[in-house]
Amino acid sequence: MTFIAPLDAMFLASETREHPMHVGGLHVFRLPPDAPADYVHTLYRQLLDCTELAPMYRRKPAWPGPLLGALRWVDDDDVDLEYHVRLSALPRPGRVRELLALVSRLHGGLLDRHRPLWEFHLIEGLEDNRFAVYAKIHHALTDGVNAVRNTMRMLSVEPAGEVRALWSPSPRPALPLDAPAAASADTLVRAGALAKNIAGLVPTLAGVAVKGVRDPDAVLPFDAPKTVLNRPLTGARRFAAQSWSIDRIKAVAKEYDATLNDVVLAMCSGALREYLRSSDQLPAKSLVAAVPVALPRTDGDGNAVTMVLSRLATDVADPIERLRRIQASMRAAKDTMGGRTPLQLSAIGALTSIGPSSLATVPGFSAAAPPPYNVVISNVPGPRDRLYWRDAELEGWYPVSMPIEGQSLNITVLSYGDNLEFGLTGCRRNVAHLQRLLGHLEDTLATLEAGAARPSAARTMRPATTSMRSSGTKRSRVIPASTEAS
Amino acid sequence: MTFIAPLDAMFLASETREHPMHVGGLHVFRLPPDAPADYVHTLYRQLLDCTELAPMYRRKPAWPGPLLGALRWVDDDDVDLEYHVRLSALPRPGRVRELLALVSRLHGGLLDRHRPLWEFHLIEGLEDNRFAVYAKIHHALTDGVNAVRNTMRMLSVEPAGEVRALWSPSPRPALPLDAPAAASADTLVRAGALAKNIAGLVPTLAGVAVKGVRDPDAVLPFDAPKTVLNRPLTGARRFAAQSWSIDRIKAVAKEYDATLNDVVLAMCSGALREYLRSSDQLPAKSLVAAVPVALPRTDGDGNAVTMVLSRLATDVADPIERLRRIQASMRAAKDTMGGRTPLQLSAIGALTSIGPSSLATVPGFSAAAPPPYNVVISNVPGPRDRLYWRDAELEGWYPVSMPIEGQSLNITVLSYGDNLEFGLTGCRRNVAHLQRLLGHLEDTLATLEAGAARPSAARTMRPATTSMRSSGTKRSRVIPASTEAS
Repeated sequence: MTFIAPLDAMFLASETREHPMHVGGLHVFRLPPDAPADYVHTLYRQLLDCTELAPMYRRKPAWPGPLLGALRWVDDDDVDLEYHVRLSALPRPGRVRELLALVSRLHGGLLDRHRPLWEFHLIEGLEDNRFAVYAKIHHALTDGVNAVRNTMRMLSVEPAGEVRALWSPSPRPALPLDAPAAASADTLVRAGALAKNIAGLVPTLAGVAVKGVRDPDAVLPFDAPKTVLNRPLTGARRFAAQSWSIDRIKAVAKEYDATLNDVVLAMCSGALREYLRSSDQLPAKSLVAAVPVALPRTDGDGNAVTMVLSRLATDVADPIERLRRIQASMRAAKDTMGGRTPLQLSAIGALTSIGPSSLATVPGFSAAAPPPYNVVISNVPGPRDRLYWRDAELEGWYPVSMPIEGQSLNITVLSYGDNLEFGLTGCRRNVAHLQRLLGHLEDTLATLEAGAARPSAARTMRPATTSMRSSGTKRSRVIPASTEAS
Repeated sequence: MTFIAPLDAMFLASETREHPMHVGGLHVFRLPPDAPADYVHTLYRQLLDCTELAPMYRRKPAWPGPLLGALRWVDDDDVDLEYHVRLSALPRPGRVRELLALVSRLHGGLLDRHRPLWEFHLIEGLEDNRFAVYAKIHHALTDGVNAVRNTMRMLSVEPAGEVRALWSPSPRPALPLDAPAAASADTLVRAGALAKNIAGLVPTLAGVAVKGVRDPDAVLPFDAPKTVLNRPLTGARRFAAQSWSIDRIKAVAKEYDATLNDVVLAMCSGALREYLRSSDQLPAKSLVAAVPVALPRTDGDGNAVTMVLSRLATDVADPIERLRRIQASMRAAKDTMGGRTPLQLSAIGALTSIGPSSLATVPGFSAAAPPPYNVVISNVPGPRDRLYWRDAELEGWYPVSMPIEGQSLNITVLSYGDNLEFGLTGCRRNVAHLQRLLGHLEDTLATLEAGAARPSAARTMRPATTSMRSSGTKRSRVIPASTEAS
């Protein structure tokens, strides 16, 4: 018997049908050249033979209800592996479109609290000699960053002879991850919960937070416009994913003297502007993004992140000017962080971003009040090496994240090899055309590239049209923009 | 806006993650001989074009929560048909085993209360040139018998040129159903809810019920032994299905001067006895089945059914003696019904069977108290004609029913054409080897046939071994006994 930590318990206690509290990952693998027709089926049988489970994959709440269930874990001494490990297939023609439709459905369902809180779906029938894995795990067991680390256990940098299961007990490998220049929103939700538990800190830090945002480029929570993205959440999900070459994004960042993350935010900004504009829903005021930022770790292995709010400048038509404004807003947000300890900054993050959003659990609140921000955009460091699962190369690794009440869209970006892997997870009702964002992301990047390709473009800031595309730039897209989830 | 009737509201108010309140149907179709490879995909696209919906398929609760949600229906003016109508595929090798595994999963998930309460799954990749449909609908909208009638709307007795959608508005066809010799448990659950709402009737009828069961062959509720089938319910489901030729069952019934339903009960009894015996869990006392029985309709189109309790004689080793005891128990149960009005009998059914089981919603009750009965066995009249959906022949039609708290297994039998279609729906945890029941059902029937084939077998009642099988008897099994859901 193990007591559940208060942060983790929060995810069990607050889960509803509208708000499943799990995170997921979609992995696209290439079949080895000589793979037999029953490759995936054989893999499935081999996985079912991996009956030894690490503690996290055996735990279940002692009582399945939401409140008592949050008190303690018990070990399931009779794990029904065939329940957790599932073999699925895509209907014809087996495009990425069919894959995203299936993942959207699988991500919307609640995990069964009578069992350990995870599922692992092996998916065959993906065109072009590929197959996929969609895995989901309850947020009470792990956050998104740790889920990435755990997934590393089944992968290797060279093709291997035997299969490793996600749930097998094994030492956690050394992490060939990118530097922690950013962090996931998941981690911050957890840090926010911690801050709320340290009640004595709250009045002091509230003062700090308000003082810290006097800068005109900085953003206060609840200063965001009301949009379709901030309606009450429903339970069904929509998921879209695509890879972009890090080289392309780095080249743009270098040209405009911006960070990689600034360019990612500018891509999201352009995509959201076009998405809302095309349905006449673009607010006059700029959208505000909540962006988790990692802090230097001073105290061991714990979470040390804060959340900054950034204006996305969606009220600006020119994409280069938008990037400039985002740079200024991010710089202002980071400046307010100077001189503070990681604990203070964690608490500021919680107060300015996650704290207010807990009000959204009051029925009707998110329908009536202005949102604290409009969208969460996370940038999670992933492995730099190309990886393999047994003898199948991992082509794409897309985070499938968790929209929260009043925040119907989550954009999480994971670095893997030479790519940035974008995973867009939305409420099926409130983000009805989620897949269009993929095309808009590409168009925005291409426009920034085109602007950069012109001499002195960065300085003269002439507007670039969105129909222009650069050519001759290295592109790496595992999932083409023309595919979409239904 | 429409107020929700109290009976229907009960199904919304009492739904939990452990106890989804929907009923389903699995339909197996044969592809026409000249079907192109994209036949099912084309069918799916055509169904998405059927955007006009009958009222039942547009309704959703005005508020998605369980209590307020039970007050009134609203029309969804923007039904997202791609959410409700889904195209899936079976993984290789596409056997019935893979089909049952998929249906088990789909039946375990809750319907989304933010949308009209139904799903329609088109499933391709079934071996032997077949495809399948699994449809589910909330019990607040319809009971199992009405669901069968509604499904008739999309079917025809001859191959048709164009596709009809389940949800399209159309007049309900005349019902080529078998005589109402039996009724579904679903209907009785609804009748039971009605009885509970007529509070004044309860004390009077409780006296009637107790008086009515003085016969030694009759069974009182809570006289059933405690078994693994009566543990607290969990949310995941297991489904198995198989067809048996009505001619085979009729021949056995004729030989022993029994009813068709007596033989169905004897098959279930033999199967349950073997299932429990093989895992050393067979109780010394006989299992008790709750069997819905239809009453003559005296007052229009409403429900007129009662529930009788029958001893299954699982404590008796000889299958022919078991059939005799079941006959006696059913006769005694029906005798107690003589002279009562349909309303009184509905109320007796509720009090003796459904009423007590509502105690099972008290946490821990079903874990501690003896169960009111052990298993629900329903026999639902279906169409006598072979039917078609567009140009695809309907080969099998299996009810996917609703286990209730403390009753982890539901066996519902639907007559279709020359077959009885058995659908076994169980709690995945409590009925861990559900699929074995299919083999045991066949073995029991074969043993009864073998006994009948011997001269005077019915009179001398020599024990027949379960390993014997009749030969030369017409068998019609769309789904072979060797397949099973994982």
